[in-house]
Amino acid sequence: MGAVMALGALRQTAYRHLEPTAWPKKGLSPLNLFLVVLIFIAVAEAVLDTEPTISRGRERLFATVEFSIGIVFLVEYIARLWVAVENPEFRKYRFPRLRYALTPIAIIDLLAVIPALFAFSGAPSLLLRFFRILRILRLAKLGRMSNAWDDIREAFYDRRHEFSLILGLLVLTVLISGSLMYFAEADAQPDKFGSIPRALWWAIITMTTIGYGDTYPITALGRVLGGIIAIAGVMMIALPTGIFASSFTEAMDRRRLSKKGDGPDA
Amino acid sequence: MGAVMALGALRQTAYRHLEPTAWPKKGLSPLNLFLVVLIFIAVAEAVLDTEPTISRGRERLFATVEFSIGIVFLVEYIARLWVAVENPEFRKYRFPRLRYALTPIAIIDLLAVIPALFAFSGAPSLLLRFFRILRILRLAKLGRMSNAWDDIREAFYDRRHEFSLILGLLVLTVLISGSLMYFAEADAQPDKFGSIPRALWWAIITMTTIGYGDTYPITALGRVLGGIIAIAGVMMIALPTGIFASSFTEAMDRRRLSKKGDGPDA
Amino acid sequence: MGAVMALGALRQTAYRHLEPTAWPKKGLSPLNLFLVVLIFIAVAEAVLDTEPTISRGRERLFATVEFSIGIVFLVEYIARLWVAVENPEFRKYRFPRLRYALTPIAIIDLLAVIPALFAFSGAPSLLLRFFRILRILRLAKLGRMSNAWDDIREAFYDRRHEFSLILGLLVLTVLISGSLMYFAEADAQPDKFGSIPRALWWAIITMTTIGYGDTYPITALGRVLGGIIAIAGVMMIALPTGIFASSFTEAMDRRRLSKKGDGPDA
Amino acid sequence: MGAVMALGALRQTAYRHLEPTAWPKKGLSPLNLFLVVLIFIAVAEAVLDTEPTISRGRERLFATVEFSIGIVFLVEYIARLWVAVENPEFRKYRFPRLRYALTPIAIIDLLAVIPALFAFSGAPSLLLRFFRILRILRLAKLGRMSNAWDDIREAFYDRRHEFSLILGLLVLTVLISGSLMYFAEADAQPDKFGSIPRALWWAIITMTTIGYGDTYPITALGRVLGGIIAIAGVMMIALPTGIFASSFTEAMDRRRLSKKGDGPDA
Repeated sequence: MGAVMALGALRQTAYRHLEPTAWPKKGLSPLNLFLVVLIFIAVAEAVLDTEPTISRGRERLFATVEFSIGIVFLVEYIARLWVAVENPEFRKYRFPRLRYALTPIAIIDLLAVIPALFAFSGAPSLLLRFFRILRILRLAKLGRMSNAWDDIREAFYDRRHEFSLILGLLVLTVLISGSLMYFAEADAQPDKFGSIPRALWWAIITMTTIGYGDTYPITALGRVLGGIIAIAGVMMIALPTGIFASSFTEAMDRRRLSKKGDGPDA
Repeated sequence: MGAVMALGALRQTAYRHLEPTAWPKKGLSPLNLFLVVLIFIAVAEAVLDTEPTISRGRERLFATVEFSIGIVFLVEYIARLWVAVENPEFRKYRFPRLRYALTPIAIIDLLAVIPALFAFSGAPSLLLRFFRILRILRLAKLGRMSNAWDDIREAFYDRRHEFSLILGLLVLTVLISGSLMYFAEADAQPDKFGSIPRALWWAIITMTTIGYGDTYPITALGRVLGGIIAIAGVMMIALPTGIFASSFTEAMDRRRLSKKGDGPDA
Repeated sequence: MGAVMALGALRQTAYRHLEPTAWPKKGLSPLNLFLVVLIFIAVAEAVLDTEPTISRGRERLFATVEFSIGIVFLVEYIARLWVAVENPEFRKYRFPRLRYALTPIAIIDLLAVIPALFAFSGAPSLLLRFFRILRILRLAKLGRMSNAWDDIREAFYDRRHEFSLILGLLVLTVLISGSLMYFAEADAQPDKFGSIPRALWWAIITMTTIGYGDTYPITALGRVLGGIIAIAGVMMIALPTGIFASSFTEAMDRRRLSKKGDGPDA
Repeated sequence: MGAVMALGALRQTAYRHLEPTAWPKKGLSPLNLFLVVLIFIAVAEAVLDTEPTISRGRERLFATVEFSIGIVFLVEYIARLWVAVENPEFRKYRFPRLRYALTPIAIIDLLAVIPALFAFSGAPSLLLRFFRILRILRLAKLGRMSNAWDDIREAFYDRRHEFSLILGLLVLTVLISGSLMYFAEADAQPDKFGSIPRALWWAIITMTTIGYGDTYPITALGRVLGGIIAIAGVMMIALPTGIFASSFTEAMDRRRLSKKGDGPDA
């Protein structure tokens, strides 16, 4: 009986250390701070591992680091599953742990553990590359630590009509620009403008002002059209940015105001 | 007599299903939703049809899809012509159907039907390419489904003085930049800067910050001028975007407020 | 005596037709409208004249057009000089016509007449090119027709502290970025980064996001530095644009309000 | 006794001329104005010195200018150290001159003197290049003359939550974009996309819309991904700029208001 109560108290303590919103003090718990640092190490290791000039001859070192980090993330996953019953949000369900295991963040946690299992064993090339990208996605584990996503979602939601309108306009502009260029340049450069999908690559790279220089009009008609499309497209693409920037600042200001209103200290 | 009345009732029902503003419920009618989906299919088909690596060997499939879609759009066109007399906007004219047939959206509808007629017959190369672009323009048929154009027109109208001023300034800046570069680089690169129209291509691609890399100054004077033009031009081109973004957001906010004021529910 | 009075009345009438602010009706006088059109024709002619694929074989046509336009501009210049004594702004001076002749717009008018004198005679290559650019600058003659320059000057003046601060920061950022890249890449690419002035060309073309692709870092250190400079520089360059856009809109709004306040009709 | 007092009065006068905030009149003291001009000359000299087509054959001239400027900056440094005891900010410390010598601006002053010592003696290549960059950093000596840094620091501080959020999002977007491109293009272009660090170079140059054209996707999957990343990335990168521009304008407005409130003249 005492052992059960001790275990309950331990689970309660573990929950407070693992769940950021349950931590009584300001900022993150030491345990979560350690996990944040570990996520950054894991991502840096995953990025450098793919570069042969860095990883060649150090395969064992990289595999050991990967495997060790994987063990810690596995323990973290099991611990979070174990303390899920302490979370009021999941306690109301019949199977709180199963409910927790099906949240997006828990699924990411589980996926993030998999690559470590193949750290030492050789995997086929394409699957290996997929695992390597999975390791980068461990960054998404950080999402738990902040309410940033809410701000961004809110900023998008506030201006959803503007965005859907502009997105539609953007698709229309890109399609029409690409089609016109296909009409003007298809004969002169069949490999680059010989079909609308090919011309669309030019349209996107031009309208975002990236301009790699791999495709550009060479005929007189193509250049006149290209100049007009360039100016029109630049304005089109920059529009959602301006709208989102102001919407995002507004959303952040609202949050700050509502926080001030919560506590007795303004 | 009963048949005429039945036909009248049918036309009334068809009108409600075809005209978005006449649909009593929220959103689009099932018929219009189907037409929206069909427009997207038609455009996707038109885009992929031009790419030989996709369409080669599937010419019959593409032609059949194109022809079928064309039949539906033809039926739609005739139906809209038939129900035009139900529309209060056109009923006041002597020939409501002729009046409707001359609206821009009806002309687009008619043009969108033409390419399907040539789906199976071979057309000469240039005309064929023109028809293909016409198929992309079917996207404009979507314009009927939303009041987006009003917002955009209003945003432009609100700031028309600013835009005309900036457009003038832009033309002046592009012309002067091109002329200066023609002066500086004409001897060093006669094929790229040997005339003002050629230098204007450089000026537009530089000022929009696209920078393909097909033309750039190589002389010392050209590079000093190019650097100054680059910085000045970037600011010049980005100006209308900033102004339009704020004007567009204002126009959307006004519309939202006026909608709230219409009904009893704030 | 009557002849002098008739001449005075004619001068008064000519002044009203030539000076936009003295025209009693709305918009421009027919004479000024004709001059605006002629300026556009003169500029288009000057641009196309430099392109050999267009002007070759049509030298006589271009020279005739140029000469005829020049005659009209010469008559305009003399007429404006003649009516300057009617302008209250210049009447207060001892030599009103000399005072007018020394205004920037009158000097531009005079310069714009010169190229026509050499329309038929051959001029040395460099001087010829200079005259051709002078013909483009005829666009500046349009400045007389609008009060656009006041809005732009006011928008700049309102935020002059911000602009001078940012300009200083910009020069500093470009210089430091170029210097760092010179340090990192001078050994690997001596022809492109072998001196700070050469590296500055890279810095400007990168920070304005033009990115021609003629110079870019190839060493590992250069790419890491280049990535950081790219992100920092993009924000730096875009700053004045954002500030100027809002300042410009404010200046235009103020003008609109003050205009409404002037007359009895709101 | 009189000599000590005379020296004290001289130090007091020197302090007023050297310290911008102690200067009783508006603007800068003549001495500081001279130093500002000298800084610009020193930087121009340092930039041009590295360009062999300019400096070759003029080595003695450049070295003499460099050495002379260095002497003036050395005298300036000693003078500022001497008058530091007059500054109320440092007088409260036990060793005011040592305290002043440890401020960032004094350290920059000291570092700026060093390159002149090596003006005539030959220095090893890498160290020489380091000294040359140090000479550019003399621009930072200008920092003393304005309160610009406060405005910029304040603008950043006001929106620090937004910036840290967006910076995190930016790192995530760049990492995920690079990883996806590594997945799509590693087989087709192993030298350019064969590892995640290499793909990150592409991601940064694309998302900042620089687009040198040294690396770009060539596979169909890579181009579809690249197009989506281009559009998403452009918006992502432009976000902080919009936020910072408005925050910076606000900070400048606040300063202007508080200045107006200080003195009796509004």
